[in-house]
Amino acid sequence: MTREIQVYDSTLRDGAQGEGISFSVEDKRKIVKTLDDLGVAYIEAGNPGSNPKDMEFFGGMNGLKLEHAKLTAFGSTRRRGVSVEDDQGVRSLLSAGTPAVAIFGKSSDVHVKEIIKVSLEENLAMIRDTVAFFKKNGREVIFDAEHFFDGAASDEEYAFRTLEAAAEGGADWIVLCDTNGGSFPLQVFQLTGKAVQKLGVPIGVHCHDDSGMAVANSIMAVEAGASQVQGTLIGFGERCGNANLSAIIPALQLKRGWRCVPGDRMTELTATARLLAEISNVTLPPGMPYVGRSAFAHKGGMHIDAVSKAPSSYEHVEPDSVGNDRRILMSEVSGRSTILNKVQPYFPGLKKDSKEAGMLADLLKEMEHRGYQYEGAESSFELLVRKRLGRFKPFFRVEKFTVIEELPLENGRVSSSALIAIVVDGEKKLSAAEGNGPVHALDKAFRLALDGFYPALRRVHLTDYKVRVLDPQEAMAARVRVLIESTDGHMCWSTVGVSTDIIEASCLALVDSIEYKLLKDVEARIKAFI
Amino acid sequence: MTREIQVYDSTLRDGAQGEGISFSVEDKRKIVKTLDDLGVAYIEAGNPGSNPKDMEFFGGMNGLKLEHAKLTAFGSTRRRGVSVEDDQGVRSLLSAGTPAVAIFGKSSDVHVKEIIKVSLEENLAMIRDTVAFFKKNGREVIFDAEHFFDGAASDEEYAFRTLEAAAEGGADWIVLCDTNGGSFPLQVFQLTGKAVQKLGVPIGVHCHDDSGMAVANSIMAVEAGASQVQGTLIGFGERCGNANLSAIIPALQLKRGWRCVPGDRMTELTATARLLAEISNVTLPPGMPYVGRSAFAHKGGMHIDAVSKAPSSYEHVEPDSVGNDRRILMSEVSGRSTILNKVQPYFPGLKKDSKEAGMLADLLKEMEHRGYQYEGAESSFELLVRKRLGRFKPFFRVEKFTVIEELPLENGRVSSSALIAIVVDGEKKLSAAEGNGPVHALDKAFRLALDGFYPALRRVHLTDYKVRVLDPQEAMAARVRVLIESTDGHMCWSTVGVSTDIIEASCLALVDSIEYKLLKDVEARIKAFI
Repeated sequence: MTREIQVYDSTLRDGAQGEGISFSVEDKRKIVKTLDDLGVAYIEAGNPGSNPKDMEFFGGMNGLKLEHAKLTAFGSTRRRGVSVEDDQGVRSLLSAGTPAVAIFGKSSDVHVKEIIKVSLEENLAMIRDTVAFFKKNGREVIFDAEHFFDGAASDEEYAFRTLEAAAEGGADWIVLCDTNGGSFPLQVFQLTGKAVQKLGVPIGVHCHDDSGMAVANSIMAVEAGASQVQGTLIGFGERCGNANLSAIIPALQLKRGWRCVPGDRMTELTATARLLAEISNVTLPPGMPYVGRSAFAHKGGMHIDAVSKAPSSYEHVEPDSVGNDRRILMSEVSGRSTILNKVQPYFPGLKKDSKEAGMLADLLKEMEHRGYQYEGAESSFELLVRKRLGRFKPFFRVEKFTVIEELPLENGRVSSSALIAIVVDGEKKLSAAEGNGPVHALDKAFRLALDGFYPALRRVHLTDYKVRVLDPQEAMAARVRVLIESTDGHMCWSTVGVSTDIIEASCLALVDSIEYKLLKDVEARIKAFI
Repeated sequence: MTREIQVYDSTLRDGAQGEGISFSVEDKRKIVKTLDDLGVAYIEAGNPGSNPKDMEFFGGMNGLKLEHAKLTAFGSTRRRGVSVEDDQGVRSLLSAGTPAVAIFGKSSDVHVKEIIKVSLEENLAMIRDTVAFFKKNGREVIFDAEHFFDGAASDEEYAFRTLEAAAEGGADWIVLCDTNGGSFPLQVFQLTGKAVQKLGVPIGVHCHDDSGMAVANSIMAVEAGASQVQGTLIGFGERCGNANLSAIIPALQLKRGWRCVPGDRMTELTATARLLAEISNVTLPPGMPYVGRSAFAHKGGMHIDAVSKAPSSYEHVEPDSVGNDRRILMSEVSGRSTILNKVQPYFPGLKKDSKEAGMLADLLKEMEHRGYQYEGAESSFELLVRKRLGRFKPFFRVEKFTVIEELPLENGRVSSSALIAIVVDGEKKLSAAEGNGPVHALDKAFRLALDGFYPALRRVHLTDYKVRVLDPQEAMAARVRVLIESTDGHMCWSTVGVSTDIIEASCLALVDSIEYKLLKDVEARIKAFI
């Protein structure tokens, strides 16, 4: 039978403790959905006792049905000198209403004596009582043995007694934590093996990356018998981060044959990692194992040559197996094939060595030089190509617009008003609108002006709006790239605009969004007619 | 006697094969100097046979005296069917004139058969001949056994025969390469142990990070008896990069007591890593072990509390030991002590259990709920605290501003104009300005209006501008957080503003920036007076 490894993601708890990471309640919901789609077993989503935002989040998650994952709330053992029932943190944790809870307690004698300052026996009682309380209340209990490896180095017997206390309390899982991330692989291997043998409870592992060895240490623990791996999908976490699950999952599943996620989800790994980065508004490091943009990028001439003969010569797994792509760097030809792959669906006749293909390759380079990027905005790229190849009939023309911004606000007045003039088939239409900001006002004015001509636009709304400053050192005069995502309830599309003026950049992306919708509607009508 | 590990840096050869990495000859010289100062044993500086720039570089390095490192040139074994003396690559390698050469040869039967397509015996002869040739010419010879670990998995006996061929040729070092970066720690440990036992030649290791385990695999090899570690100081390299030496050196030296660099250079590790990043024009990942900006950054409240009692509670080594700094981050998860640490420099009297401290903790939570984040904007936090505690005398008041935006542009006209009215000591001042965008126009109008009152502001300019959309699903009506960085040539400071209106958010950050500068100037004057 295939060995199963339970993947436990803590992006929303330990990950949120990484520098620069901050999730809104809505971000958290999206991330839960994303991780559940990937098929992880546990999603640790926050610490309801320490953080009101997390409390709000768990309140809103009640009743949500997840397909693969158990939602897990995180908290501490009871404090000293308080009964479990009366401990405020314990009560918050219970009220989160999750099927599983993770409780951390101290496994290092030094921490017991110097940080929480209780007796060694009292610490064992705190662990035992708290685990037992949550078991009595019907929860699956995961005990996180904080500082276990450092604790074992200081007093191994006591470190194991803390694990036994959790086992006595009825813990479903005991997780060995390398909290400071300072342990060596052999140490993790040996101590995990011992814990697996000594305790009658399944063992997990939780590693930090302060030594750059969190992935290897996690894998060593699994090799020694651990059956749960904690980490964060793209390595977010306190200090240097937590064990990067996007490296651990494929290593165990593709190379060892141990099931971590449903087999058919493995090819979603790269897309999931990138989506998570996107929601978190961070850039995924290009060299990130398996999922990074450069993970299968070949640059050395000899490497490229060998890879073209046998990809496995310089690739440890097939890029496809994790949904990533092979990239050959610094090659004009590869640039063209990529464009061709994108364009052929709507220009089936385009040939690789044609004048048009060359012209599009140059155009792409020019636009990228101007700050455009079409990786996340392929609708704008389609419009650009159609316009350049003369296959686009304009639906409207923006004659001019004016936005007026007045601050400070008085008596709930909105800050911005916009006036716009458009021309459709020679007919001019003016409209004006107010909004909570200049772009909002402009968006409303656009919709008003076009409404009489294209009522289908009423179904369109924008679902995402991102702004990236391209040359931050230019400060207020920097170019910005605006990406927007739109939907009409059936399809979703993304468009982009670049300008030193954020209102103009937003307007360019907005016009593309509207044009793309109108174009697709026309195409659909033509298809229905044929 | 202390065990010595020879550190072999390949930033200039394997590192240069990383995506986005490109060194000029001058960059290469600077990097050689930097690495030599750190005290590595070998600097692999290029492949003279494959790259004319590298040939030029080695020519210019002749006669240069290095303090610690041996300059090393890299190349391949001779080709098949050519004598060593007549092989062009071998001749280039010799003419580089370095004291040491690294020669790579195939250790995998699959590569011998499928990539270079020679007989297994011929490959052994190519290795033996080439090593012997360089020994005869007085070079120290390092044999890189390419694909050794994959080769051993395919045909272990043959993989070891390639090592023996190098030993027969007289190699000074035999380096086991995990060229594709796909090996597991236990595998590296076992095979390295075997090589150390079998061969009478010192063993090295060369790992790639495709599995995120290059650091751990290198350390496992050293634990198994290897005495040379190859890598790149900050992990540059093909695909996911090479083993990150800045993580390996302190792990072996500080934790195992095995000498990698001179003891007094260890505290230069962080500065060296950052200098190398600077020369290479890349940003060092904040979470990079030991040397990253976040490597000792504490954010979780409990962590911060414990670190203030005993730093070792959440730090695996002293940040000072590698020349890095501890940082305490401020956020809703960080708690009262952090706020206190931040605020005490300007409010020395503030106590942890005071009413004010509680009020500030609540205020921080409230502001974060509104979308503020002070981690990268501590100047705004100081202003907020001062205003709330009544320790701020306003320098000016913004009565109102109006921004007018008109598009499309005609005849090079700028898109935006701003009008602003401020009041200083009861005196009202109006000004107007144009800009390449609404925020640019506003910034200019502000400066004009304040110029007569505060000429010191002329020295201030903005160096960074970031925009983050906080609730992207709200699309054009979303809140945005604007972060700006300013400098007056002496100090740098960062401020933040949040609003649904990007112009307002920018304006808030801008006003904070100006107020902070004026405040610090007043403080400096008071100090000079006392």
